[in-house]
Amino acid sequence: MAITAMTAGSQHYGGLAKELGVELISVKMAKHLDEKDPLKHLRAEFCIPSKKTVVPEGADVAEPDTACIYLCGNSLGLQPSGVRTLVNEELDVWATHGVTGHFRHPKKRPWVSIDENVIVQSAKIVGASPKEVAIMNSLTANLHFLMVSFYRPTKDRYKILMEAKAFPSDYYAMESQTRFHGYEPDDAIIQMSPRSGEHTLRTEDILDTIEREGDKIALVIFSGVQYYTGQFFELEKIAKAGKAKNCVVGFDLAHAAGNVPLRLHDWGVDFACWCTYKYLNAGPGGIGGAFVHERHARADLPRMSGWWGTDPATRFLMDNVFRPIPGADSYRVSNPNVLAIMSLLGSLNVFSQTSMTDLRAKSLQLTGYLEALLLAIPNRGFKILTPSDPSQRGCQLSLLFEEGLMMKVFEALEREGVIVDERKPDVIRVAPTPLYNTFSDVWQFVNILKTAVVAARIDS
Amino acid sequence: MAITAMTAGSQHYGGLAKELGVELISVKMAKHLDEKDPLKHLRAEFCIPSKKTVVPEGADVAEPDTACIYLCGNSLGLQPSGVRTLVNEELDVWATHGVTGHFRHPKKRPWVSIDENVIVQSAKIVGASPKEVAIMNSLTANLHFLMVSFYRPTKDRYKILMEAKAFPSDYYAMESQTRFHGYEPDDAIIQMSPRSGEHTLRTEDILDTIEREGDKIALVIFSGVQYYTGQFFELEKIAKAGKAKNCVVGFDLAHAAGNVPLRLHDWGVDFACWCTYKYLNAGPGGIGGAFVHERHARADLPRMSGWWGTDPATRFLMDNVFRPIPGADSYRVSNPNVLAIMSLLGSLNVFSQTSMTDLRAKSLQLTGYLEALLLAIPNRGFKILTPSDPSQRGCQLSLLFEEGLMMKVFEALEREGVIVDERKPDVIRVAPTPLYNTFSDVWQFVNILKTAVVAARIDS
Ligand SMILES: Cc1ncc(COP(=O)(O)O)c(C=O)c1O
Ligand SMILES: Cc1ncc(COP(=O)(O)O)c(C=O)c1O
Repeated sequence: MAITAMTAGSQHYGGLAKELGVELISVKMAKHLDEKDPLKHLRAEFCIPSKKTVVPEGADVAEPDTACIYLCGNSLGLQPSGVRTLVNEELDVWATHGVTGHFRHPKKRPWVSIDENVIVQSAKIVGASPKEVAIMNSLTANLHFLMVSFYRPTKDRYKILMEAKAFPSDYYAMESQTRFHGYEPDDAIIQMSPRSGEHTLRTEDILDTIEREGDKIALVIFSGVQYYTGQFFELEKIAKAGKAKNCVVGFDLAHAAGNVPLRLHDWGVDFACWCTYKYLNAGPGGIGGAFVHERHARADLPRMSGWWGTDPATRFLMDNVFRPIPGADSYRVSNPNVLAIMSLLGSLNVFSQTSMTDLRAKSLQLTGYLEALLLAIPNRGFKILTPSDPSQRGCQLSLLFEEGLMMKVFEALEREGVIVDERKPDVIRVAPTPLYNTFSDVWQFVNILKTAVVAARIDS
Repeated sequence: MAITAMTAGSQHYGGLAKELGVELISVKMAKHLDEKDPLKHLRAEFCIPSKKTVVPEGADVAEPDTACIYLCGNSLGLQPSGVRTLVNEELDVWATHGVTGHFRHPKKRPWVSIDENVIVQSAKIVGASPKEVAIMNSLTANLHFLMVSFYRPTKDRYKILMEAKAFPSDYYAMESQTRFHGYEPDDAIIQMSPRSGEHTLRTEDILDTIEREGDKIALVIFSGVQYYTGQFFELEKIAKAGKAKNCVVGFDLAHAAGNVPLRLHDWGVDFACWCTYKYLNAGPGGIGGAFVHERHARADLPRMSGWWGTDPATRFLMDNVFRPIPGADSYRVSNPNVLAIMSLLGSLNVFSQTSMTDLRAKSLQLTGYLEALLLAIPNRGFKILTPSDPSQRGCQLSLLFEEGLMMKVFEALEREGVIVDERKPDVIRVAPTPLYNTFSDVWQFVNILKTAVVAARIDS
């Protein structure tokens, strides 16, 4: 039976197991799925930590030299093997060429335009044209720089619509921006919460709010994929509704870039920003990304400017005339960090070997399989917060544990060399990523989880 | 005869040459000075490019495998040999530990607080307490983030006092900031120029302007060392005069940090920012630095906030309450880039082996010697823009060439493996840095320059 996006639902796997004459939660089933995986070769492009290096000190893990079960690409992506070479090549150029590397570069990556090496692939990943993308700074810094242009409140239209449970940095950014313009955050920020008893926002409620409050809303800002619940917001609909009400629409794509298909340009999104250390595997504190829609490319917007945003042809004239580069580049304020760019390039070179379409197809399979296995655990001790509709989520599933279980389960997983992510008090986030995770990873995780829950219950 | 800061003037070297019975412009003299140099061992801590890798393609340089004459630390510092190990160590940790490196780090540098490794030494270099310093973003980004707090114009006090010939990025920053607050840059920015016929600003004129216009000035901002002329501004006097008029005083230390002695705290400077790729040798696009005076550590200032600026003890409570870390850290918006921090650490480890006092002592010698040799060239074809008073300059001397000579001289130098920096139309900047340059470098440079000028003249 062919594995396609159409068969992503978790229901599918029970039938498939039966067909193959194996147990659903079984190594045979996992191996079968791995064999059929058209992207399985990409795992070899990554450095997979072994169990012994990731378990806490003193943990007596079985098979310490085997690969750990790394389901944490939502927090920090694994290192693409090509990164080391690229980073060291730049260290070589710096060591052997000094400042001349800015213009004469033995690898044809002159530092003065080093970021050009990561633009085209980044643009593909977020569904933008290269002119719409800049790779610079960090996510929250980009958010602020972009809001200088794109949050311009007036007496009648000064509100920001966002999730109540947005990532805190986004809230701090919004709060400080409203204050900076003389508004009280409590008044200026409309925070949307799920309906009582629900964990995720309904698109219809978001659209209703935009329809109802839109005339007062200066900026609609959502995350692409919610960091906590894993909900993949219906960005196209949100953008359309926001634009229909003449709001500016921006997205924080920290958990979306490299995870889900995005078409920022076609959706008419005004601006977006993302980090590269999660699904884009650029390493701890990796450089940030920014999108500015083409329609603003030549707009005369307020901006906090720097020399790297001015036309390079006249950059060194020293005539104090800022001539913004048409497009997202006009937001660059400084010369780019070369090592950070290389670290990202190492990962984008892996993305170049596939497409977001193929990655998404595998991701739907992988997460559907994870869901099927989780739901097959009897008396499982948690529920899944993430939407069950595959089109409403990325790769991550968030498990909400019964009171008192989560940390015990988490620590048991850790001791077995399973890397997932906890959010106190009760949530574990599990993110199988299609670039380097296998169906066997998922199977092993669920197997260990089952035991961990039983042990945690006894211990309670 | 002992070499001390007292004997830095260029006059000194003529006498010394006589005493030693050698020519002033002679390899013997240079070798003598190198032998007496108490910091000479530090050169071994750096990767010095060879001539063959820095000359333009096709140049037929003599002794291609010997070290180039690198006098360009004002643009990009050379690579400290320790950087490669540190960067690769972090690549190792990422490869072997994945996300667990944030908290459990085999080298005791958990990524969550990786920047702590570069704070103490950075603070020493700029004369600050560690709480006053943050290492983050880039120079121009930091300038903007700091101006959100420190440029708060009012109807009566909205002007910015700066140099007319400030580095363009600073001008763009000031221009965009005044516009953002609704002012016209032409009205809001007071640009100071040198007196007619002079190349550098007189401190008395700066102080007079502050005295005269101070009541209307919201922000006094100068560079520490002027990028073009090499003038080391009298920062203490400027800060004192600005504070006496209740202005905010900020400095751009791009060319000052690691070059000249700074005492930001004692001088009462409000804020400062710097880059680390020049005299701090952190590599192309190196991470930025920021200083915020202790007196503002708990001030309730407007700020563009992010999660890395809030109290780490409550950072993960997800309660949307921003609790600014007292001090410069409250300005951090994002988690730090690990490779960029390591690259800086590699250089600071060299600074830790000496002190800014000792570096300045050698720097005064080195630049004084350069000046003596330059002034000894008959019919030299350029004049020195940089102040002749050693206390009014850092290591750089800026040579203003007679019309038509500069590019010819520059290209001749390049072909001989001499790396200096040109600013069209007529200036060459020469920056011998005390960490890795030798008196022999200076001698060789001058020797090659002499020939280059003669040739350029014939060619004209
Ligand atoms: C005096 C001065 N200010 C600001 C900058 C801009 O630096 P960045 O690109 O690091 O923001 C430079 C760069 O050379 C500089 O020399
Ligand atoms: C959704 C979201 N937004 C913003 C951030 C903040 O990121 P940074 O530190 O890169 O600014 C994160 C970090 O995890 C995030 O998950």
